[in-house]
Amino acid sequence: MLIIGEKINSTLSGITQAIEQRDKEYIQQLAKSQVDAGANMLDVNAGTREEAEASDMEWLVKTVQEVVDVPLCVDSPDPKVIETALKIHRGKALVNSVTAEKERLENILPLVKKYECSVIGLAHGKEGIPDNVGGRVSAAKSIVEVATKQYCIAVEDIYIDTLVLPVSVDYKQGMVCLDTIRMIKDSIPDVRTVSAVSNISYGLPNRAPINKLFLSLAIQVGLDAAIINPLDEKLMTEIRLAKLLLGKDEDCMGYLRSHRKGLLSF
Amino acid sequence: MLIIGEKINSTLSGITQAIEQRDKEYIQQLAKSQVDAGANMLDVNAGTREEAEASDMEWLVKTVQEVVDVPLCVDSPDPKVIETALKIHRGKALVNSVTAEKERLENILPLVKKYECSVIGLAHGKEGIPDNVGGRVSAAKSIVEVATKQYCIAVEDIYIDTLVLPVSVDYKQGMVCLDTIRMIKDSIPDVRTVSAVSNISYGLPNRAPINKLFLSLAIQVGLDAAIINPLDEKLMTEIRLAKLLLGKDEDCMGYLRSHRKGLLSF
Repeated sequence: MLIIGEKINSTLSGITQAIEQRDKEYIQQLAKSQVDAGANMLDVNAGTREEAEASDMEWLVKTVQEVVDVPLCVDSPDPKVIETALKIHRGKALVNSVTAEKERLENILPLVKKYECSVIGLAHGKEGIPDNVGGRVSAAKSIVEVATKQYCIAVEDIYIDTLVLPVSVDYKQGMVCLDTIRMIKDSIPDVRTVSAVSNISYGLPNRAPINKLFLSLAIQVGLDAAIINPLDEKLMTEIRLAKLLLGKDEDCMGYLRSHRKGLLSF
Repeated sequence: MLIIGEKINSTLSGITQAIEQRDKEYIQQLAKSQVDAGANMLDVNAGTREEAEASDMEWLVKTVQEVVDVPLCVDSPDPKVIETALKIHRGKALVNSVTAEKERLENILPLVKKYECSVIGLAHGKEGIPDNVGGRVSAAKSIVEVATKQYCIAVEDIYIDTLVLPVSVDYKQGMVCLDTIRMIKDSIPDVRTVSAVSNISYGLPNRAPINKLFLSLAIQVGLDAAIINPLDEKLMTEIRLAKLLLGKDEDCMGYLRSHRKGLLSF
């Protein structure tokens, strides 16, 4: 399970200000604390100051990689911003993201190939997010087809985000997302899946426990990576429980070690 | 999801004493509170006073059915005790349980047919609980084969208990149980599955949250019924969350109603 820390995102409180003021200490502390909490990768997003996005992103990548060794998930819709980040990134980055739209594929995938990184493919095309499994699987297949055949990107380097619509809007959307993950894992061998689960609970009371369980159900059907807050101890405990119950924690060592270290929170 | 309340069981504290003293109020209160909390059926077990089991069971069935309308899950290994209960039981009972052993099948299944009830089949034979999926599915198939062909019991009336071994003993047993449920649902059309989940966490710290998540994971792969404590508000909340996320709560009405009534507990 790849855990991508979501906290260095300019849409979250405090981050834009820290970026604008080039507050290294604030950003580096957030980077270190996420990695200490178990993140294997960190998302970096500098999208709020549009005119300065490229230079902000460059500063973010340098600043974060000064203090942590994990690779970054470069989060921008702008190919120029993405390339600015990839040029200076150490290790194998993950580009977040491309959709199945032709123009987006042509703009983003050459960079993924050139800089030998991975990419998140959003399972939708021009028409927005399909409300059914078939539409999403079909968008995922288009992305994989173009990426592997036209750009020779390895299928293992493609993370499909199956997208999450709230159950409060359509109560079947939990199943739609879970079925999509399962079908993508079944029908595209070796492709990876990623999700940022939290949209599932939009509009409902008690969002945290809903998100927590949805993450476990997604892991059960084959989710490989999650963009989450690793400082959320209850959420991280949920992942440990899911591993324990799904045969991914040999001799329960991970769970018992977390228990002894006082890391479990319920 | 069929919720079978587990509290009227002579192995639990206070019950044997209540049975011995014919304490109607105690037992009836426990019956009513479980049904009020959402149980659709109540397990009744009078196994601790072996010499008196038949008369104790008879008293239990009468006492419980005086105050609640749900059917009972008659929990005994002794065919005589089972028949004593079935003779006076109102509605469609569930017999708990039979194994795939020839003698057990011959003793129990005629009663299931005669009294037109359902039966729980434990997925093991003479050799004890198989530690793998194949052994359990094979035991389940034997039970269904004999029950449907020799005794003309409808497959919908058979609940297979896939059995749960602790992950602390073998860390793959969570997956073994979940895979068994999935395979049984796939390979025996219309058969039901049942589980008492809690054995999964035996020997580990923080048993309640482990059991809770395991129940959700089991529901996702097709669990139809659970023998649990319906007075455990966190566990009942977990079932509501699982339904919400698995497309089984139309327009989220069940979840929102539980929220408004203050029934959710995290």
